[in-house]
Amino acid sequence: MNENFLLNNECARKLYNNYAKDLPIIDYHCHIDAKEIAENKSFKNITELWLGGDHYKWRYMRACGISEDLITGSASDKDKFLAWTSCLASAIGNPLYHWSHLELKKYFDFNDHVTCSNGEELWEMCNEKLKPCQDIIKESNVEVICTTDDPVDSLEYHKAIKNDPSIKFKVLPAFRPDNAMALNKDSYTDYIYQLTKASGVKIFSFKDLKRALSNRMDYFNENGCKLSDHGLVSLIYAPASDMEIEKIFSNRLRGIYPTSDEINRFNTAMLLFLHKEYVRLGWVSQLHYGCKRDNNTKMFEAIGPNTGFDCIEGYTPGDDLANFLNALNNDNALPKIIVYSLNPNDNALIDTIIGCFQEGPVTNKIQHGSAWWFNDNKLGMEEHLKTLAAYGNLSGFVGMLTDSRSFVSYTRHDYFRRILCNFIGELVEKDEFPEDYEILGEIIHNICYYNAKYYFDFN
Amino acid sequence: MNENFLLNNECARKLYNNYAKDLPIIDYHCHIDAKEIAENKSFKNITELWLGGDHYKWRYMRACGISEDLITGSASDKDKFLAWTSCLASAIGNPLYHWSHLELKKYFDFNDHVTCSNGEELWEMCNEKLKPCQDIIKESNVEVICTTDDPVDSLEYHKAIKNDPSIKFKVLPAFRPDNAMALNKDSYTDYIYQLTKASGVKIFSFKDLKRALSNRMDYFNENGCKLSDHGLVSLIYAPASDMEIEKIFSNRLRGIYPTSDEINRFNTAMLLFLHKEYVRLGWVSQLHYGCKRDNNTKMFEAIGPNTGFDCIEGYTPGDDLANFLNALNNDNALPKIIVYSLNPNDNALIDTIIGCFQEGPVTNKIQHGSAWWFNDNKLGMEEHLKTLAAYGNLSGFVGMLTDSRSFVSYTRHDYFRRILCNFIGELVEKDEFPEDYEILGEIIHNICYYNAKYYFDFN
Amino acid sequence: MNENFLLNNECARKLYNNYAKDLPIIDYHCHIDAKEIAENKSFKNITELWLGGDHYKWRYMRACGISEDLITGSASDKDKFLAWTSCLASAIGNPLYHWSHLELKKYFDFNDHVTCSNGEELWEMCNEKLKPCQDIIKESNVEVICTTDDPVDSLEYHKAIKNDPSIKFKVLPAFRPDNAMALNKDSYTDYIYQLTKASGVKIFSFKDLKRALSNRMDYFNENGCKLSDHGLVSLIYAPASDMEIEKIFSNRLRGIYPTSDEINRFNTAMLLFLHKEYVRLGWVSQLHYGCKRDNNTKMFEAIGPNTGFDCIEGYTPGDDLANFLNALNNDNALPKIIVYSLNPNDNALIDTIIGCFQEGPVTNKIQHGSAWWFNDNKLGMEEHLKTLAAYGNLSGFVGMLTDSRSFVSYTRHDYFRRILCNFIGELVEKDEFPEDYEILGEIIHNICYYNAKYYFDFN
Repeated sequence: MNENFLLNNECARKLYNNYAKDLPIIDYHCHIDAKEIAENKSFKNITELWLGGDHYKWRYMRACGISEDLITGSASDKDKFLAWTSCLASAIGNPLYHWSHLELKKYFDFNDHVTCSNGEELWEMCNEKLKPCQDIIKESNVEVICTTDDPVDSLEYHKAIKNDPSIKFKVLPAFRPDNAMALNKDSYTDYIYQLTKASGVKIFSFKDLKRALSNRMDYFNENGCKLSDHGLVSLIYAPASDMEIEKIFSNRLRGIYPTSDEINRFNTAMLLFLHKEYVRLGWVSQLHYGCKRDNNTKMFEAIGPNTGFDCIEGYTPGDDLANFLNALNNDNALPKIIVYSLNPNDNALIDTIIGCFQEGPVTNKIQHGSAWWFNDNKLGMEEHLKTLAAYGNLSGFVGMLTDSRSFVSYTRHDYFRRILCNFIGELVEKDEFPEDYEILGEIIHNICYYNAKYYFDFN
Repeated sequence: MNENFLLNNECARKLYNNYAKDLPIIDYHCHIDAKEIAENKSFKNITELWLGGDHYKWRYMRACGISEDLITGSASDKDKFLAWTSCLASAIGNPLYHWSHLELKKYFDFNDHVTCSNGEELWEMCNEKLKPCQDIIKESNVEVICTTDDPVDSLEYHKAIKNDPSIKFKVLPAFRPDNAMALNKDSYTDYIYQLTKASGVKIFSFKDLKRALSNRMDYFNENGCKLSDHGLVSLIYAPASDMEIEKIFSNRLRGIYPTSDEINRFNTAMLLFLHKEYVRLGWVSQLHYGCKRDNNTKMFEAIGPNTGFDCIEGYTPGDDLANFLNALNNDNALPKIIVYSLNPNDNALIDTIIGCFQEGPVTNKIQHGSAWWFNDNKLGMEEHLKTLAAYGNLSGFVGMLTDSRSFVSYTRHDYFRRILCNFIGELVEKDEFPEDYEILGEIIHNICYYNAKYYFDFN
Repeated sequence: MNENFLLNNECARKLYNNYAKDLPIIDYHCHIDAKEIAENKSFKNITELWLGGDHYKWRYMRACGISEDLITGSASDKDKFLAWTSCLASAIGNPLYHWSHLELKKYFDFNDHVTCSNGEELWEMCNEKLKPCQDIIKESNVEVICTTDDPVDSLEYHKAIKNDPSIKFKVLPAFRPDNAMALNKDSYTDYIYQLTKASGVKIFSFKDLKRALSNRMDYFNENGCKLSDHGLVSLIYAPASDMEIEKIFSNRLRGIYPTSDEINRFNTAMLLFLHKEYVRLGWVSQLHYGCKRDNNTKMFEAIGPNTGFDCIEGYTPGDDLANFLNALNNDNALPKIIVYSLNPNDNALIDTIIGCFQEGPVTNKIQHGSAWWFNDNKLGMEEHLKTLAAYGNLSGFVGMLTDSRSFVSYTRHDYFRRILCNFIGELVEKDEFPEDYEILGEIIHNICYYNAKYYFDFN
């Protein structure tokens, strides 16, 4: 994997080297814990940094026939590492191969490829070169990180980071109210109690719930929050009257669980309310949908959620998304929104739907988010770029994010930039766009950095 | 964009230059107004010709953050033009970039590319070179144009064109009975009154409606009509008894609106009846489906339909299409049909369904229509050609149409021919098909011109 | 079509020539009749061998406008052959073009391409070189063939082949209990009677049915069966109580046909039971779904099933597959499974679902089966390989099968190997994977041969 990795034509190489490579990183969506940054976490070994919590790698190891003991079990960290590198050696065509080698190169100066026989050597070498997380972030030229935070979060670590003069990059919270919408969870009433405590608003009604959330949104806003995030199985648009929603909510407080129709109506009401708030605060909304979680009950019971047992949801909405955006628009409650579906088949559909709600002065007011999760590979990214370009406005795209729990995943911005430059370079090489670097350079600059900066208002 | 635009290999260039380039154009489906041709409409400036009614461009401008005033509003034509060219300059990967530059080259001799700074110059240059529409059509080597006409249309302009000895190309009507099927529109009963007037058949029953339509079809047929067209949200097959349909229809005449089930049944009955008529007249039927229209209520109320607020319909039928074609076949009412879905995911599905209803002596009796609307770009066209070739008979394909409201869109035939030649040239370059120009040349000839000529019977 | 057919880069050619080309063939799924092998069937002419029963070719001929008489009708074998070659000559981009030329080259030494004028010559040449089927299989370097057999099959021909010392390749049965699940067929009760006879178990209840099938599975197992196969319209997961299933079954025996809900529940119960048995016997299960059959009623009535009138099913399941696999897993009844959908849009969905159920020590315990039927072309295979690599573990893939009724279809393994080597070679040429032939060679070896050998336990 040399300097020209993924840059398969001359124009791509120029674009990458002259315009993309050195731009700072805005990582506007990730799952890093602000506490770890504030405390400048160190890692006991490469396994903790690289394999801890990384369910992408775990899934791949299971497919390779590795026993669970060597994945999430009681085997030693070294054995886990060696099991992983033995799988990685033949992971042809898989993004883990590219991600891992980019990470090894960037953070550990490893310029070879992993084989079945150099695992031991790698183990020693990586452990020697481990650094605490703030150093990694600095080295990565990161300007802004947006974490993902529950409305009840105190944001104390975000404050601590802000007040630490040695930290030059920004770490901002993002508002993710999934728990406030999870009516069917047993822990819902406990959560409502926590929200009461955090907001100071006693919650006996849906109206109260909305007041409590508004309160927390103001608090997040004061602490630099610029965007929200929703994780939805599927985006269903099911409008209902206030009275219906109040009833569903008060029932739930009394222990009567909602039907699936009621869940859809409640979620719709919440999303309509929250998006109105996002308009009020000037926030960007992110809608992530199309994921069916925790499909392997046995493994869920053994090791819990986010361990590699999720898949694409079979039903992904079309009409619902259009109708939902229209309802927001009718209510003057259409903020900037980024739509992400886990189903790569939805690309063209999403691009044509969001095209119905674009409106100046914002460029690409409704964005089609970067290829997500399972699609965060060369194939998925190229498909996303191709359809976005063909059906929408590529040059206004807000670009990449890591969506990651790992401190060494910033190379995915580099991965994206290479794929983007290669994609655009190919169009130029095929004479589908002129080799005019004034225009091309601006397009690359914007997608890699400036579009995000202005879209989210990170000034 | 030089002579070899999109022709990325030697074989493609040979095929294009020796077989495709000079063939006449049969534009068997468009939305041009016969009246404008008959009156040889002139254009006051390039904005009227190029941006008037072109909702593709409007959508793109909205995504670029241009204010509506500069799109469909009260801004000057020149300012609108400059706003558009400023967007176009960075429209990388979008078909508008290719279409526009092909049009600028063909009709305005512009051999450079649009930038943010040459808009003024273009405005002057294009306005100087404007021509009336008949000249544009002649210059474009067009042999046949099929317009899209309502059953109540008098076809007076088609007749006028036919009787004008100075017009050498044919302008034929195509029968589009969408209004006769739009039971749920408030204007439906008014429409029935118009149909009564046009046909001379008093319409009190579904039976009467069918007689009136038969009458109009005979009239269209006498005036050279060779094909019909249906614009459907989604093709649903819902058979019902004559009695049910009579009841739905008579209810509607009395002001009782149909349920959505009743709409499906009524549409099915209409389609079954009409296709029987198409067999009687030897017409080709076109089925366009998969479009969800007018999704932005605010903009619909402000500026009406066909202004850039449509998207792909989330539900697109599979079984329904197969069952509908089978019902026609069982009833000896299966004419030649061209199927178009707006959802590019349907390609393989459609190709395998139509494969169940092919029957000699017609080649590709059921056709998979050219990539449509949002898919009318290089990506969509290549996907369509690839799946048609892999799952069906590419060499029998009836080829391209503009589907356009614009007089300068004939370059899309050129666009298609380049993409086709490139697609086939690549197969040859990769040794997937022999470089035998006797066979290859015939395939190109047929797809670009002769297949349409014989399929529609334009002799 | 020279030696380097489909091998478009140097690495691909090395991989094919040094690692893929000479490996034996394991054809673990086909529709060849064991009786024909046992009796070493000869063919009266090339039409019988090549066009008899080949509904892929028939479909293509219909699309070319050939009359049915020349396809399945009373025309002479020679005229049928000439009609076919006249179609084949321009079948650009269609897999039939590649398959047919590979077969002509391999089995008839024909190194040119078919044109409209060399049909006569081909007819003579092919007829001269016809061989009996055992010779063809031997020449093809086939090691194992798995046929597809009904539970009531006596397997007498499989035994005869096993006992024939002149036959060096293995011909093993595969268990396909579709008839035992076809509750809605009129012939179901007759079938139950046959199953009673074959198993010696009187069947009055669902419990009896299960016992009878267990009995037959033991018999198949004794005769070398290693895998089962299910042909499903759509995989629906609809759990029900034993009592419900017993009632549905006893109703059917008494002539009361099931509703479609009852069919789904019955099929689910059967699949759950059978997969438990597959675990007991160590068999691999194959799930084929997504096919809507016999769509042209007129042609079905004229010439029956499997004649070229099937298509992709519009509804293909997502959640159902995940929930079904989870139910098996919860019940400790999850055998090795290969999933095949006829809908190419399902690739990514399937890859992410099976990723939730991988478990050592087996590599790729749940497999995404090779591109199937309509997708068994370069386009479909490349899409399958790309998504499998990007979302799963390509190097553990169990590889190709013919799924064919023809004795000359073994070249499809060669076709697959070329496409695989080209796919992997391209990744290497683009520096997405190192040119390390120790690793690459092993990956090719495994996918082409060893993975299947070990996965199915053919030792």
